[in-house]
Amino acid sequence: MTPEEFRAAGHKVIDWIADYRARVYVGDLPVMATTAPGDVRRALPSTPPDTGESFDDIMRDMDRIVVPGLSLWQHPSFFGYFPANSGLASVLGDTLSTGLGVLGLSWQGCPALTELEEVVLDWFRQMLGLSSAWSGVIQDTASTSTMVSLICARERASDFAFGRGGMQEGLRTLVVYTSEQAHSSVDKAALMAGFGRDNVRHVPSDTHFSMHSASLEQLIVNDLAAGRTPCAIVATTGTTTSTAIDPVRDIAAIAKQYGVWLHVDAALAGSAMILPECRWMWEGVEEADTLVVNAHKWLGVAFDCSQYFVRDEDLLVRVMSTNPSYLRSTVDGEVKNYRDWGIPLGRRFRALKIWCLIREQGVHALQERLRRDLRNAKWLEEAVRATPDWRVLAPVPLQTVCVRHEPDGLLGAALDLHTQRWCDALNRSGKAYLTPATLDGRWMVRVSVGSEYTEQAHVEALWANMRAAAEHA
Amino acid sequence: MTPEEFRAAGHKVIDWIADYRARVYVGDLPVMATTAPGDVRRALPSTPPDTGESFDDIMRDMDRIVVPGLSLWQHPSFFGYFPANSGLASVLGDTLSTGLGVLGLSWQGCPALTELEEVVLDWFRQMLGLSSAWSGVIQDTASTSTMVSLICARERASDFAFGRGGMQEGLRTLVVYTSEQAHSSVDKAALMAGFGRDNVRHVPSDTHFSMHSASLEQLIVNDLAAGRTPCAIVATTGTTTSTAIDPVRDIAAIAKQYGVWLHVDAALAGSAMILPECRWMWEGVEEADTLVVNAHKWLGVAFDCSQYFVRDEDLLVRVMSTNPSYLRSTVDGEVKNYRDWGIPLGRRFRALKIWCLIREQGVHALQERLRRDLRNAKWLEEAVRATPDWRVLAPVPLQTVCVRHEPDGLLGAALDLHTQRWCDALNRSGKAYLTPATLDGRWMVRVSVGSEYTEQAHVEALWANMRAAAEHA
Repeated sequence: MTPEEFRAAGHKVIDWIADYRARVYVGDLPVMATTAPGDVRRALPSTPPDTGESFDDIMRDMDRIVVPGLSLWQHPSFFGYFPANSGLASVLGDTLSTGLGVLGLSWQGCPALTELEEVVLDWFRQMLGLSSAWSGVIQDTASTSTMVSLICARERASDFAFGRGGMQEGLRTLVVYTSEQAHSSVDKAALMAGFGRDNVRHVPSDTHFSMHSASLEQLIVNDLAAGRTPCAIVATTGTTTSTAIDPVRDIAAIAKQYGVWLHVDAALAGSAMILPECRWMWEGVEEADTLVVNAHKWLGVAFDCSQYFVRDEDLLVRVMSTNPSYLRSTVDGEVKNYRDWGIPLGRRFRALKIWCLIREQGVHALQERLRRDLRNAKWLEEAVRATPDWRVLAPVPLQTVCVRHEPDGLLGAALDLHTQRWCDALNRSGKAYLTPATLDGRWMVRVSVGSEYTEQAHVEALWANMRAAAEHA
Repeated sequence: MTPEEFRAAGHKVIDWIADYRARVYVGDLPVMATTAPGDVRRALPSTPPDTGESFDDIMRDMDRIVVPGLSLWQHPSFFGYFPANSGLASVLGDTLSTGLGVLGLSWQGCPALTELEEVVLDWFRQMLGLSSAWSGVIQDTASTSTMVSLICARERASDFAFGRGGMQEGLRTLVVYTSEQAHSSVDKAALMAGFGRDNVRHVPSDTHFSMHSASLEQLIVNDLAAGRTPCAIVATTGTTTSTAIDPVRDIAAIAKQYGVWLHVDAALAGSAMILPECRWMWEGVEEADTLVVNAHKWLGVAFDCSQYFVRDEDLLVRVMSTNPSYLRSTVDGEVKNYRDWGIPLGRRFRALKIWCLIREQGVHALQERLRRDLRNAKWLEEAVRATPDWRVLAPVPLQTVCVRHEPDGLLGAALDLHTQRWCDALNRSGKAYLTPATLDGRWMVRVSVGSEYTEQAHVEALWANMRAAAEHA
């Protein structure tokens, strides 16, 4: 495709995206795809074309095959998983990144890529109210960020013996602690990094689903007594299921006392830390070693853009660095080489999509949008609490409301069935998208508010639809 | 930004990219940025804006601040690192992905995202001449792909004891084997996955810089005798430094005999396997366990898009899977959930950029472009061989030519200095971009041919510029 062909097709693509987003934002398309398994696959040719096709043919298949198979994450009635806003200014930033087609293997491979990332991550640090002791880098997801932390913790706890000698006999058993409410990516990262499932402690949570810090300490003491080495704690600010808030200050004190690495997973809730009134939620975060905030969730940077902050960048680089001849350059001492700050070597120019979003919106507008979402969640919480047979199951510090319809006499498995049935019916109706989850061993429905175009009217409509679905289930 | 504001700004962005690419493709801009460390950072405000700015202001800063700080990977005189083509049809595919703003956490979260990925990865499998025993998935980079392989190998070799018990006492020492010419990402993956540097064997290479398979077997025998467990071999088809070809057939036989996992790193050279005449280079690949091909290199898919192929998908999923309640759905048995095929949970719709490239180009056009590059590399090889004081240092099976100017009397460190000096002078002239590397302990210059717009005339001009630079250094 030549630049002139790109120009022609590109204008059509931009118009197509603008039309698509406008249609999604209106809110009358079905939110959840009703595609059956295999529908999309069967609509596509099973072999690649020998000769080129026109871009118009591709766009026709976007409409005909791809769009019907999408669940609409940008829909104002998308209340599933977490808000994955992909603000249109950020989309343009990402388009610029792909259009430039540059790569950051080292500073010299593309100086602007590295330095813009330094600057916008520092903007972010300020927006989150973090001290200047933190340095930031973009990772793909919080899964990777958490894994990088656990690998660093493993190396620090073993005085780098693990990096040298690996899993040979004689090494101590290193233990990771996280709340029983923590995200599955913590277990996965521990597994990938070689800790082993047996050495991940799931600390009990309290009645608010926050990590119980006295239990954490007890587990550490037990492990020490058994000759094991406490290595890392992963605290969560805003758990996936219920946005529960672990007591970071207390946990940090324990981490310090026992010399254990502290990583704070604020993948979802970190966005809210641009609001000073929310920062009590991670009080003590300055005592942590590492921290992750997914700017690609509520805040609105197009996926993927996980911001990873560290205090000891020397240690990070020591653990992550390899230095082959083909990547060296004469300025290596003077610049950051982000290849040594994570797992992949190659690097997109992802800072552009942050830069475009923050500049086009300004911090105030971002703050006001998040405040709107907090108000909408609070509205729903109060509406649910005021309604017979409905329960709010967890505190609502942020934008997620955990609810259950509990009609008279329904208990246990019958109640689970009822919950899944009405939620599934509502999803299938296309009027909203909700993802149920278990809390205290029973199914309930999470309402995750915060899609960019979700106004109070959408939450009110959702609540009416939830009641109707539950009564007819 | 509203859809209508996006439409207006988006058209400008498309025009800007079209103009930028056209300017780059002409080939008279300096290839390497001459930016000094800190130049870009100092040109940017150190704090984020409180209120929004116009997108025109952002575009002005693209021209004023960002572009001068770019090294031009799409320039026809870019001969550094590896070809990182970002074909414009693929750029539009990526724009569509970002514009849709959908996420693949599970099949249900976006059915089309999963199924289009299945289909285009299977197109790719066919284009590469692989049997239908392989299943594909997109990872971000080969670093991650290789790490996933080593983690799977670790679990298979320990009968999953490692995943359960982790690094506790009593586990056997697991060993990884790779060529001394292998990419740094193999060492890094082994380190991240917990093997430890001491347990990575760098197998000697032969005079062609290919892994010496008899030495590989000897190392395995030695490790077994010492009570260690050979776990994984990483063979390379097309090494980074010189595109050396490891003998996959012989290595696969050894892997089979000793029950060791075999991963084939064809990150760069895999693209050439769409040419039947190149497939001798990885003969035996069907005996491997896993395989990585970076479609975001020579082939032209916009970064990042690393294609990872496995034969035993059950084992991959067993190692990588976590299954929290908030990700389950009613169709889980019938569909692929790619979250269990790698490390990150969240997933961009990256299949779109492959789909758009293959459809717009067709397989034949992709093949012809690669054949052109092979011819151009061959032309340079012959020109260098025919010139006094110049040497070709390694076989040229693909598109990389390793050369050195060796004027009379220059040896050792003096020769290294000369090499680095003329290469640096040429890079600073802006006329070409080359990345030197060491081979047999001495510096030399890699000429990596294969940028999308590189024609023979550009290689001829490069060769004239190399001679001029070397004579004046």
